[in-house]
Amino acid sequence: METLLERRKRLLGKAYRLFYDNPVHIVRGEGVWLFDADGKRYLDVYNNVPHVGHCHPRVVEAIHHQAQILNTHTRYLHETVLDYAERLTARFPAGLDIAMFACTGTEANELALRLARAATGNDGMIITEHAYHGNSWAVAQITSCYTKAEQRGDNIVTVPTPDMFRGLYANDKAAAQKYAAHVQAAVETLVRNGHRPAALIVDTVFANEGLPNVPPTYLQQAVDIVRRAGGLFIADEVQPGFGRLGDHFWGYERHGVVPDIVTLGKPMANGYPVSAVVTTKPVTDAFSRDAHYFNTFAGTPVACAAALAVLEVIDQQDLVAKALKTGEYLFDHLKDLATDHDMIGDVRGSGLFIGIELVRDHDNLEPATVETAKLVNLLRNRGILINSTGLYDNVLKIRPPMIFGAEHADLLLQKLAGALEEIRAPVHRKS
Amino acid sequence: METLLERRKRLLGKAYRLFYDNPVHIVRGEGVWLFDADGKRYLDVYNNVPHVGHCHPRVVEAIHHQAQILNTHTRYLHETVLDYAERLTARFPAGLDIAMFACTGTEANELALRLARAATGNDGMIITEHAYHGNSWAVAQITSCYTKAEQRGDNIVTVPTPDMFRGLYANDKAAAQKYAAHVQAAVETLVRNGHRPAALIVDTVFANEGLPNVPPTYLQQAVDIVRRAGGLFIADEVQPGFGRLGDHFWGYERHGVVPDIVTLGKPMANGYPVSAVVTTKPVTDAFSRDAHYFNTFAGTPVACAAALAVLEVIDQQDLVAKALKTGEYLFDHLKDLATDHDMIGDVRGSGLFIGIELVRDHDNLEPATVETAKLVNLLRNRGILINSTGLYDNVLKIRPPMIFGAEHADLLLQKLAGALEEIRAPVHRKS
Repeated sequence: METLLERRKRLLGKAYRLFYDNPVHIVRGEGVWLFDADGKRYLDVYNNVPHVGHCHPRVVEAIHHQAQILNTHTRYLHETVLDYAERLTARFPAGLDIAMFACTGTEANELALRLARAATGNDGMIITEHAYHGNSWAVAQITSCYTKAEQRGDNIVTVPTPDMFRGLYANDKAAAQKYAAHVQAAVETLVRNGHRPAALIVDTVFANEGLPNVPPTYLQQAVDIVRRAGGLFIADEVQPGFGRLGDHFWGYERHGVVPDIVTLGKPMANGYPVSAVVTTKPVTDAFSRDAHYFNTFAGTPVACAAALAVLEVIDQQDLVAKALKTGEYLFDHLKDLATDHDMIGDVRGSGLFIGIELVRDHDNLEPATVETAKLVNLLRNRGILINSTGLYDNVLKIRPPMIFGAEHADLLLQKLAGALEEIRAPVHRKS
Repeated sequence: METLLERRKRLLGKAYRLFYDNPVHIVRGEGVWLFDADGKRYLDVYNNVPHVGHCHPRVVEAIHHQAQILNTHTRYLHETVLDYAERLTARFPAGLDIAMFACTGTEANELALRLARAATGNDGMIITEHAYHGNSWAVAQITSCYTKAEQRGDNIVTVPTPDMFRGLYANDKAAAQKYAAHVQAAVETLVRNGHRPAALIVDTVFANEGLPNVPPTYLQQAVDIVRRAGGLFIADEVQPGFGRLGDHFWGYERHGVVPDIVTLGKPMANGYPVSAVVTTKPVTDAFSRDAHYFNTFAGTPVACAAALAVLEVIDQQDLVAKALKTGEYLFDHLKDLATDHDMIGDVRGSGLFIGIELVRDHDNLEPATVETAKLVNLLRNRGILINSTGLYDNVLKIRPPMIFGAEHADLLLQKLAGALEEIRAPVHRKS
């Protein structure tokens, strides 16, 4: 008898990966819970796509209602795409007035690249090390965790991740300027290579880089440097956006900068494939001189109805404030947990986006990569779905649906403490 | 008071285009009909995305049902993606056993490019002139209708569209060989440029090229040449696929070839954003040696439930046979219409994918481009939604939902005859 795993390999091939040594066969979702085929319940601590909770009835109903009426494309006039664009751009400062739609975060970043090139006339890109922005060919070029430097064009230059825990200038009071100096150096490298910067692009919470604490004025300085060199700033808000960080609706706001282009994706319509670019009139005007834009499945009535419902639920259920509150509660208790468990080297993040960095040695910060993988699998067996991130895959990534409350945080904390106890190993404390 | 058009420009920017001089404000769809805000009914002769009809209740219900239960990604085990992969690959000959999922046709072609490069170790691409395959950077490189030769890398070479009406070797009995010789020359150009072919890619109905009649053995010869040079054949079935051509389920079958990679999109889930690549085990095995594949919104339970429903409706309503029958009826009557209207230079196509090429002169085939645009707009005002294609935008493109019947064909024929009458102009007949 063919197992589900064998059947999957036969039908989808070998390129597909599964989470966990013992993959989970999920059949149902509700709120922060996922249920497997045996009826076992898992707390979802990882999935940001079901932003307002798995199968939120308001979003399901919005999709169902509109799917019965009309679902066609943006080459006919329709009000829902405009209603959504209006509601979405209202969340941004004046200037960021225009919304363009795509289906995936990758497609949003593809469009952002085209916009930045058209608006500046330049083709250079500055990216952080170990960044993730998507999987198309052009976006993989700016996804430093997938491509090695020699696989990228000489129009793409990386800068060190501004990490205050383990970065080049960790714990250095002048870290902001020192990290920003690398952006200046990147501009000069581009010029030496015969390019000028079209844009600096960062995920504003640096999720794939391990959610580092970023020195407060770093991004302001970096953006100033890039703008002086004729480039734009693209804020990739696919992960931090829509209030996840609790203190602000968008991640860039925490850095005191205003982007020229913002890209949005995953949580935008709670799982219906929707993404967007928000930008300025001058940028789209420049782009539209030589190009037009169409994406068959993007900005359709159903996609926009689903996305509108997500914005409404965020407001009605006050989910940004909830993310801040639950996040602070969880953060404080994780800090307490760290005093009992030496393996926890750092706890950081904001709202419902928290990283727990695990180390074997507090002096040399040797990453506890193997232990992190063990913890992820132990937690899976204990009914907690979580995963890891960062250059060394040693950062537990906590990124649950926004309806995650203190009671869910308590369950996570209890299971995490138990799992940490189980893998307790000698850790070198600060000497 | 801001009009809908002004509001759209303010919120979406200038890069978005609308169909028709007097754009249509569509608010409802049902079967082959679209309805505007004033309640006026339009016959949809153009949209292939609503493959089984606008808002088909079976597809709407499949989406609604699954959206209430679960909609998460392919890093957990789930049976619906496998059920769909099984049902989909069963429509292909043995060997084309593996399905991989994306969200848009562009993303499917992105993945196909990566697969072909990985499987062959080559990076050369052979494409037809005026081809359309999508809008990402890499796919725009193989989309010759968007990019000029000088904007493309020297690893991409075009070949003439194998057109029997106005092509290089129109009406030439040796056309198949003569057109195929250009594929051999393209291979040699690639080699001179330091490349070898990864793949030949064609839309198997050459929709953007104007739906030409292709000499019967052309594609066999072309594919043989490419395979001998170490390349693969990618069949882009985004437009011809899922039975539209009536005689076969896939466009490549009409050419007596079997592809190595097939890409699918638009009609696949009746408007829910779904696309796929179908390929062989050796191709995915080669790809997975150095890469893995994940696409957040792709292959989800809801996406696959919608796609499964489309396959079921196609079978239950016998829509492929219906497309053949309606198509033949329409084709014959269009041929009759051509005898009364000199502007019709050619009628061609299969099933519910028919092109009507309009000319000003039957000797030199001067394209009636302006007249075609006029006709499209006249028909819009008479309640028929249609559009044009081809290098000269002088081919009326008939590509309605698959439930289009003889009664709808009659209405189209009647309105088309009236509109042709209205713009009747002197046309030079064959001398």
